[in-house]
Amino acid sequence: MGDDAPLFYQTPVELVRGDGVWLDDIGGKRYLDLYNNVPCVGHANKRVVAAMAEQAATLNVHSRYLHSGVLDYVERLVGLHHDGIEAAVLACSGTEGSEIALMMARAATGNNGIICTDATYHGNSALISRMSWLPVGTDRSGIRSISTPQLFRPLQEEATEAELLQLHLDQLRATIAGLEADGHGLAGIMLCSLLANEGLVQPPSGWFPQAVDIVHEAGGLVIADEVQAGFARSGQWWGYLTNDFVPDIVCMGKPMGNGIPLSGVAASHDLVTGFRQKHRYFNTFASSPIQAAAGMAVIDEITDRSLVTQVTDVGQFLLTALQTLQPDHPRVGDVRGRGMFLGVDWVHPGTTEPDVEGARAVVEALKERGMLLGQAGQHGNVLKIRPPLVFEQAHAEHFLEAFAETVADAHA
Amino acid sequence: MGDDAPLFYQTPVELVRGDGVWLDDIGGKRYLDLYNNVPCVGHANKRVVAAMAEQAATLNVHSRYLHSGVLDYVERLVGLHHDGIEAAVLACSGTEGSEIALMMARAATGNNGIICTDATYHGNSALISRMSWLPVGTDRSGIRSISTPQLFRPLQEEATEAELLQLHLDQLRATIAGLEADGHGLAGIMLCSLLANEGLVQPPSGWFPQAVDIVHEAGGLVIADEVQAGFARSGQWWGYLTNDFVPDIVCMGKPMGNGIPLSGVAASHDLVTGFRQKHRYFNTFASSPIQAAAGMAVIDEITDRSLVTQVTDVGQFLLTALQTLQPDHPRVGDVRGRGMFLGVDWVHPGTTEPDVEGARAVVEALKERGMLLGQAGQHGNVLKIRPPLVFEQAHAEHFLEAFAETVADAHA
Repeated sequence: MGDDAPLFYQTPVELVRGDGVWLDDIGGKRYLDLYNNVPCVGHANKRVVAAMAEQAATLNVHSRYLHSGVLDYVERLVGLHHDGIEAAVLACSGTEGSEIALMMARAATGNNGIICTDATYHGNSALISRMSWLPVGTDRSGIRSISTPQLFRPLQEEATEAELLQLHLDQLRATIAGLEADGHGLAGIMLCSLLANEGLVQPPSGWFPQAVDIVHEAGGLVIADEVQAGFARSGQWWGYLTNDFVPDIVCMGKPMGNGIPLSGVAASHDLVTGFRQKHRYFNTFASSPIQAAAGMAVIDEITDRSLVTQVTDVGQFLLTALQTLQPDHPRVGDVRGRGMFLGVDWVHPGTTEPDVEGARAVVEALKERGMLLGQAGQHGNVLKIRPPLVFEQAHAEHFLEAFAETVADAHA
Repeated sequence: MGDDAPLFYQTPVELVRGDGVWLDDIGGKRYLDLYNNVPCVGHANKRVVAAMAEQAATLNVHSRYLHSGVLDYVERLVGLHHDGIEAAVLACSGTEGSEIALMMARAATGNNGIICTDATYHGNSALISRMSWLPVGTDRSGIRSISTPQLFRPLQEEATEAELLQLHLDQLRATIAGLEADGHGLAGIMLCSLLANEGLVQPPSGWFPQAVDIVHEAGGLVIADEVQAGFARSGQWWGYLTNDFVPDIVCMGKPMGNGIPLSGVAASHDLVTGFRQKHRYFNTFASSPIQAAAGMAVIDEITDRSLVTQVTDVGQFLLTALQTLQPDHPRVGDVRGRGMFLGVDWVHPGTTEPDVEGARAVVEALKERGMLLGQAGQHGNVLKIRPPLVFEQAHAEHFLEAFAETVADAHA
């Protein structure tokens, strides 16, 4: 697979088996999974496996033929959103979803300009990777960034939250004006609804809805990237609900098929049709009966097992417990997040200075204790806690014990 | 799914079941499948379904953990190519594979220029769709095309085959010189090894190896698109073997997982590592245990059932039988292709003028007779015969009977 294929851990983990929130390595060691959001309804989920296997044993073809399972799935998926979301285009990866969303926004507005944050990641294609970690003030063929709105490491140290809000909104207005002045015009803004890759940062209160209004007033479309934020992750079905805004276009991915490659872009009927008329988009492997079967089983599991409620409850328990650790542990700079997606901002004691190496050591130490989690954020120093949605109270307690010991060790 | 979602046939076919080379619609009508290359080892192939289901019930995670099934699969896949192919990057769609191949060629050469033919299709992303049906003489950010080399509708009517060869090679040299003169330099050429979307055209003898030499002498890399041409389709494992050239980079897709989204780009260890170092490429759903399980089962099926030989034999029988029809049917302008990938060039009688509507009528009439096939080529007038690889002599005979009747009707 070539040198430098990306791997986690100094000594990579070789896995052989998964079950619910547990993963077994080749040496027989068992890990509690606090990282993986793709197997959202649990590793080796029986209902998803059965649905997928049965469909594969019956029929799996491309979408130039009709298949009722595919139509039913798209209808169900679209129905999980607000009324403005009426149709969807399915694809195979988050990257493909992001490509479709950008093409859709550009087709609808006739404009080229796209805005993102300066610490985001929406995919790995040539077009979409232009949005990756794009410094403010840089133009990449009509794609420009704004500073990530955040309270913990604010754009201006002495500013109040209200002043910070205005600073960020002014920067957004100026970015739109710049795109217009340079002939790109505004097609839209693309935002992860939880600002996840940005480090799950907390923006100044009101930033999301006010930024959305500014984009709409300028004629642009709002694309919510729900690839990480969606499917109950936040304690609501969609991350945008927790941040009080209504997107025009929604990108979905990772947890959608519990591991079967599946992504989708949902929007109004007019936006989807406009995209189709302009691009004649066809995707060989997408909108297939097997994608629909897996996707439907995932929605059924989330619904029937009341995972939205479970995520809210267990997530709140975890968040509170982690916050309780904070006062006595100056390396825990900040604890934040929603639902089952939490971040612990690891810092040099008594500062807000990111401590990437310290965070890495915590991740390695937790691996030794049989817990898998990751690092995220603009600086890579945020401990990312994002277990499968089926993570229960008892799992949280088990984790908190190991985490408290690890944090204590780091402060010893 | 929006208006204008692409569908086959005036009255689309709604499918409910598949088995080998057969597809059943909702009304109970059974079709012989002469179109679908993705389910290469047959619709609902038991071995692939079992391998996939067993793996999904055991473990399916991303590739930042190690998994022996993934490593074994990549090794097996790479071993099916010539010695220069040593490593691979897996992805989820042919488009993602094409993106990787272009990024790899550009990373290795430091150049931007890419050459393709003027009637090709390599994918649907913003970058890759620049190659779609790109007119000669047009520049799309360093991507330029050459005329599709072909004997049936030659670039110059009165030219001999040898003269035609030189015309096309001269045009390639001029295109490279143009890219260099305009500061793009040459990164490489991307070619479907069977010129499939171009209409399965037959180039002047020697064109592939000589074009490849010209690209190599100019410092460029040769990318073989085997998304349609690969996995025994041509009667050899890879289409490039039938056209006597040795690519530096190979893109694979469609049949690779018999319907599980799976694609891959294989090349030398240095090319793959160079790509990884430059792009830090990661793909959430790719290089997964389920992809590897499905992919391995497909290779096992092709090998154990001797499908390379079967494709050669049945394909040759079909080709000969179709050619036999030609003299008495002036609408059959040309019959060509390799292995189980044949094209019938449908023309206005006695000319080489493409008859798209006539081809469409044949496709519709064959649907009524219970046969599914498609249209392809620069003009859309080529009947595309591309059944699953498990298509047998008896199926070919069954098809030929219906086809002969349909062709006779069209000439009546």
